[in-house]
Amino acid sequence: MSTDLMPNRYRPGESDLPRRESDLIARRDEVLGASYRLQYRRPVHFVRGEGMWLYDPDGRAYLDFYNNVPSLGHCHPEVNAAMAEQAGRISANTRYLEPKLIDYAERLVDTFPSELDRVVFTCTGSESNDLALRIARFASGNEGVIVSTYAYHGTSAAVAAVSPNLGDAVKLSPFVRMVSLPGPAGVPESQAADFFEAQVRAAIVDLNRRGIGVAALLIDSIFSSDGVWVDPPGFIAGGVAAVREAGGLVIADEVQPGFGRTGAHMWGFERHGIVPDLATLGKPMGNGFPIGAVVGRKAPMEQFGATARYSNTFAGNTVGIATADAVLAILQRDQIPQKALAMSQRLRAGLEKIAHQPYGVRAIRNAGLFFGIDIGREGAPAASRRAMALDVVNALRDDGVLVSTTGANEDSLKVRPPLVCQAEHVDLFLAAIERALIKVAG
Amino acid sequence: MSTDLMPNRYRPGESDLPRRESDLIARRDEVLGASYRLQYRRPVHFVRGEGMWLYDPDGRAYLDFYNNVPSLGHCHPEVNAAMAEQAGRISANTRYLEPKLIDYAERLVDTFPSELDRVVFTCTGSESNDLALRIARFASGNEGVIVSTYAYHGTSAAVAAVSPNLGDAVKLSPFVRMVSLPGPAGVPESQAADFFEAQVRAAIVDLNRRGIGVAALLIDSIFSSDGVWVDPPGFIAGGVAAVREAGGLVIADEVQPGFGRTGAHMWGFERHGIVPDLATLGKPMGNGFPIGAVVGRKAPMEQFGATARYSNTFAGNTVGIATADAVLAILQRDQIPQKALAMSQRLRAGLEKIAHQPYGVRAIRNAGLFFGIDIGREGAPAASRRAMALDVVNALRDDGVLVSTTGANEDSLKVRPPLVCQAEHVDLFLAAIERALIKVAG
Repeated sequence: MSTDLMPNRYRPGESDLPRRESDLIARRDEVLGASYRLQYRRPVHFVRGEGMWLYDPDGRAYLDFYNNVPSLGHCHPEVNAAMAEQAGRISANTRYLEPKLIDYAERLVDTFPSELDRVVFTCTGSESNDLALRIARFASGNEGVIVSTYAYHGTSAAVAAVSPNLGDAVKLSPFVRMVSLPGPAGVPESQAADFFEAQVRAAIVDLNRRGIGVAALLIDSIFSSDGVWVDPPGFIAGGVAAVREAGGLVIADEVQPGFGRTGAHMWGFERHGIVPDLATLGKPMGNGFPIGAVVGRKAPMEQFGATARYSNTFAGNTVGIATADAVLAILQRDQIPQKALAMSQRLRAGLEKIAHQPYGVRAIRNAGLFFGIDIGREGAPAASRRAMALDVVNALRDDGVLVSTTGANEDSLKVRPPLVCQAEHVDLFLAAIERALIKVAG
Repeated sequence: MSTDLMPNRYRPGESDLPRRESDLIARRDEVLGASYRLQYRRPVHFVRGEGMWLYDPDGRAYLDFYNNVPSLGHCHPEVNAAMAEQAGRISANTRYLEPKLIDYAERLVDTFPSELDRVVFTCTGSESNDLALRIARFASGNEGVIVSTYAYHGTSAAVAAVSPNLGDAVKLSPFVRMVSLPGPAGVPESQAADFFEAQVRAAIVDLNRRGIGVAALLIDSIFSSDGVWVDPPGFIAGGVAAVREAGGLVIADEVQPGFGRTGAHMWGFERHGIVPDLATLGKPMGNGFPIGAVVGRKAPMEQFGATARYSNTFAGNTVGIATADAVLAILQRDQIPQKALAMSQRLRAGLEKIAHQPYGVRAIRNAGLFFGIDIGREGAPAASRRAMALDVVNALRDDGVLVSTTGANEDSLKVRPPLVCQAEHVDLFLAAIERALIKVAG
């Protein structure tokens, strides 16, 4: 595992920066401090965004193949108009009767299997996962949580404690168990489901043996921070069933895969053919506006809601709801998930061609428009693979294309363009990544 | 203590509602469920907001003396223009270099004592308190948290576990200790400081005796959920010093008192003459936009930030920052805290006159424009005082004025108008509350 907290970050003194940038960074360090890390050896600064593009102060355009919050593209005029119009009329909280809140809640749960028919709004994906853990612990009466080896689920105390991705400095909960994924463990696809189920069953035995019990299996169906391990579809089903048998709930963390990212499906869990008990939403839900949600089955949601007094001041306010409503309407009207699927196929085909060249592309994995591209030759030392991935990321940045890294060794490119990308953007990206690989591998 | 989770709420079947409302409520219950509670025996529905006023679908105006999020008034045009303008240009995250983020961070910390010179942004007050607890536990190496008897600090798992106000259904952390406040304990003001310090010292001894140690004293300087216990200013100082001696940090929860609510002072802790280690911000920071922050001393903030990888996707994004920046600029330019102080004096004087009438106003407490008004005669049973307070709240609602209740027995009116209220609004409120008291007490 990489011991660096964020490999793709700016390190002071590493690059010669223009005075304009270095002065800003000095001020930034003085007031925002160490929690704030900039991406890239030479950080970027954007003053304008539009669709797939971001522009720096000199007017240079950057193709965004990284940001999965503005799924509908940067500064979407319809979404912004809905937000501004509502903000000018009323920003009401959920303690008042508001038809728009109810309309949107109904439309949102309609995109889920019929078993999931209740929603509680939050402001961030972290709040969604934190609330889902509270509900699962309440409903199961248990404490234990099962996650993947390198999972990241957010930033609140409770959620960070079940996010091994955060590294040694953030203590894990004594109630969390990590399960290996078949892909990174080198298990062939034909045995993936059995392997995963066996891992989950072993974790359940251990949790029960200690009297902790299983509250939840918490999984991001594309296992993004583990390095994007998506195949074979359905490999999680046996583990899901084992957790249910043990009295635990299944939480699908849809903060990254949700809202059409995986292509064709609206929700990532659908690709695996399972129905969770709770699904947690965030990032693209408001195309940038802070809004999230927990959608779930009636029984656990009502058990929690009727006894624990949950309220969240900003969550579900009409401005956030109007914004999210516009996002959902556009996703459905413009068939964004279906288009994302077509673009993901074009991107995959182009990457496979590139992988046949001797540039050191080890593997390509994706679900829709979420790609993990392993960089560095088979058998090369982990550190050199990681260094090469970082070199590729920075070469792309210098070429005006934004991506970053992921995975236990941070040697996978993390590629997740806004879902509105078109053939021309895919082709620009393919040409740029080939140039970057030639530059780095050459 | 009231066993009701939220006394001022709508209960199905309690009131005869028009079909329009009852149908909406039925749909609402079906999709949002039990977590969502409506205020008032006859819930309200607003379609427009402007300054101090909210309007229902029939055009009826309600005077808002309750909502402390839109401190600058509902639908403030300048704030909304700043939000919309930024959203149309770029919504960038903090991994990119953004001068506006740095400018606002500097202007925000400038409103604090010089020892507090670092800021980390969040999206909600709950996230702010959750992060502050993480920082305090990291920096102190301890786990224990000291709060007031009836404290409420938010909704994440970690914060709910130190919020006794949530009632028996939400389990408290084994590491939290509650301290009684001098006011509700009936301690005279002359002994308040000693009483509070003794309570805190006893909690420290207990935490140390069990090897838990003290991570933080977490206090809202106006103790709003305890019933608004603000006097005498400075009574918390000895307790603050005791926690520091024991190696703990002092967290000022400024989510409710901050941004000028207490009048004259920008921050509630200033009224008590103390300087905390961390201050947590939320509610009025963006006049409705979901944004919060932790402002703190360099040492604990950097210790946490350098080792724990904290990142929050939506927090500090340029749209939230532009909105909060407009709010701060208006607060300072228009001297809102100073005006709030003047209005609070007018309101207090009017309420004192009313309290001399035989209407059953037991006591009035306030810091600036945050008032607790105890309803029901001295010696009356707790249940009848609570019922009377609820009757007053609902009489005011029927008269077109919004307030709610607070306190351990929920027999205090919680009154906290937007800070832009003027003499005419104060006078309208005074006339309305006198009418409500006569109606209920008569």
